This record gives sequence, structure tokens and C-alpha cells, in this order.
Amino acid sequence: MPHIPLDPALPGISALFAYRPETATPLGQLAEVLLRGPNSLSVGERELIAAVVSNGNECRFCTGSHAAAAAETLDGGRAVVDAACGGIDDAPVSAKIKALLWIALAVRETGRAVTDELVAAARAEGATDVEIHDTVLIAASFCLFNRYVDGLATVAPDDQAVYDQIGKRLAVDGYARLGN
Amino acid sequence: MPHIPLDPALPGISALFAYRPETATPLGQLAEVLLRGPNSLSVGERELIAAVVSNGNECRFCTGSHAAAAAETLDGGRAVVDAACGGIDDAPVSAKIKALLWIALAVRETGRAVTDELVAAARAEGATDVEIHDTVLIAASFCLFNRYVDGLATVAPDDQAVYDQIGKRLAVDGYARLGN
Repeated sequence: MPHIPLDPALPGISALFAYRPETATPLGQLAEVLLRGPNSLSVGERELIAAVVSNGNECRFCTGSHAAAAAETLDGGRAVVDAACGGIDDAPVSAKIKALLWIALAVRETGRAVTDELVAAARAEGATDVEIHDTVLIAASFCLFNRYVDGLATVAPDDQAVYDQIGKRLAVDGYARLGN
Repeated sequence: MPHIPLDPALPGISALFAYRPETATPLGQLAEVLLRGPNSLSVGERELIAAVVSNGNECRFCTGSHAAAAAETLDGGRAVVDAACGGIDDAPVSAKIKALLWIALAVRETGRAVTDELVAAARAEGATDVEIHDTVLIAASFCLFNRYVDGLATVAPDDQAVYDQIGKRLAVDGYARLGN
């Protein structure tokens, strides 16, 4: 049960966005720029980073939602997302995405865990400065979103069909509407 | 040395805001709403939450900046900030602020560490639903900011006078300008 009175019809972060529109607007805009804005990383690759970080943080609502959004948008779909959440080394993604996912998991732990070696490895696989920047900020942002969703004990549905529906909607509409 | 090419004249997050204005705008707006917007928590109390979380995350730049901003704006000034960063129980702040700081430190660890007991304790000391919400979101936001600043290895000045100057500027100007 949520720690504060939220609309019981709304799961996860959507209940928090409805509760506090003043903070929903910049949070929705941040997600839209990072996950849907013009970028050399595809939407699916960025949603995969969000899903893997949320999975590491054991946030059921965010993992379910962003794994579903990644499954809708990533080449290879659900199988690739599940593999990456299970372990980066054996996931069927490019060497560049593996290196960026290792950076994201370091950020999840603490910013100080992002070593020169992790960054050099990503660059050796062709990652650009902006891709490295955005990977760090996507991972850091999901350290916010995961804590926000779980810190107020929002509702995480048990039914996978709910997440599949959220994933389809996020694939089409993105995040700009969420905070408005 | 930063992991990506940043303006060497800019310390901490200001270099990242200059590097990627697209994400700076929503991040600046988020900080402005949370730390300067209308609220029953004072500016000093909210800056104290930011400083205590940043201190827990061992982020030198954010701790220095927000401890200085809290010292400028909080009743009791620097001595109260230093005491709260050293340990909440003995800090000379109200029982309500102590209870909210315990929630913030739980969020810092993981959202799932915010227990019904921690929330009930804050409510017993008079904390409102919005104060509990905002404490969780301020703490979660600094889990983002701290990781962003350290994950890209931005410059954290050694000179305390730099942080004192940042604190004075944040006390007067807030955050709205930062992302624009």
C-alpha cells in the first residue's frame, strides 16, 4: 500500500505524476529528452539501459515497464531484453552496447564506480562522448525513478499484460505527455 | 579528469549543464521546484536534505555546494549542517526534520528501505503527505545528481571558498537559471 494517498487506479510512477504535477513536468521532459530525443543510440538501446538499471535496482514497476518498452523497440525484442537483464556478457547485443551497459551498472552502484577503464572500453567499441554522457545520465535518472516509485511504495501490478500495454504505449507516445 | 571533454573553467554539474543543455533544462527545473518552489518545508530544510544525501553518497561537489547553500539558508547555519552530516540523532534540528532525514537516508540506499515505520514516525512528528513525498523525491533526485556528477568525473574544487560562493549564489538565485 502506498505511503501517501495516491489514486488507486494508477500504477507506479503515473500515480506520483498525478499527485504532484509540479515535479511531473520536468521529470517527464527529462525522460522524453533522454529516451526519445534525437540520439545516435536507438530508442530500443536507451530503453534497454533503463530496463537493465531498473532490474539491478530491483524496481518491479520500472523493470516491467521499460523491459516491455525495450521489447517493443529493440531489434530482437523480448529475448534480447531478458538476456541482458540476466547478464550482459552473454546478451546478444553489440560490443558497444555491452560496454555502455557496464558503465550503466557502475553508475547504479555509485558514480565513483565509473572507471577510466570502463570508459576507454566503451570508446574502443566506438561509443561517442555524447553516448557515454547519455548512458551515465539515463542510468542516474533511473536511480531516481526507481527510488521514487519504491520509496513511496506505489502499486506494481502482478499481471504481465499490464506492462505489455505500458510498453506499447511508451513505444508510441513516449514521455512528453506524462508530465502534462 | 572528466571522462568527456568538458569546459575546464566549470566545476561539477555546471560543466555538464553547459555540455548538454537539452537535459540541463528539465534538471534545473526539477531542482527549482523541489528546493525553491512553494513548500511547507523551508529552503534551508530542503537544502539540508540535499546535503545529507549527497554526503551519504560521498559526492564531494554536491555535498560542498548544498552544505554551503543550507548553511546560508538554515536557522543555525553551518554548525547545524555539519552536525546533521555527522549524524542525525544528535543534530540540533526538530524531531520532524530528523524523521524526514531518516527517510531520505533510506531512499539513498534503496526505495524499498522506506518502511511503514519510518513514514509513521515522520507523520507522528507532524510531517504532511506532501512533505513525505518531497523528501523522497529530493533524496531520489540527489541520487541522480550525485551519480551524474561523479559518473562523468567532473571537477570538484578543493577550495572551500568556491563552495561558499556557490552556496551564496544558490541561496539568492536558486536553480531556474542553471538549465537555461
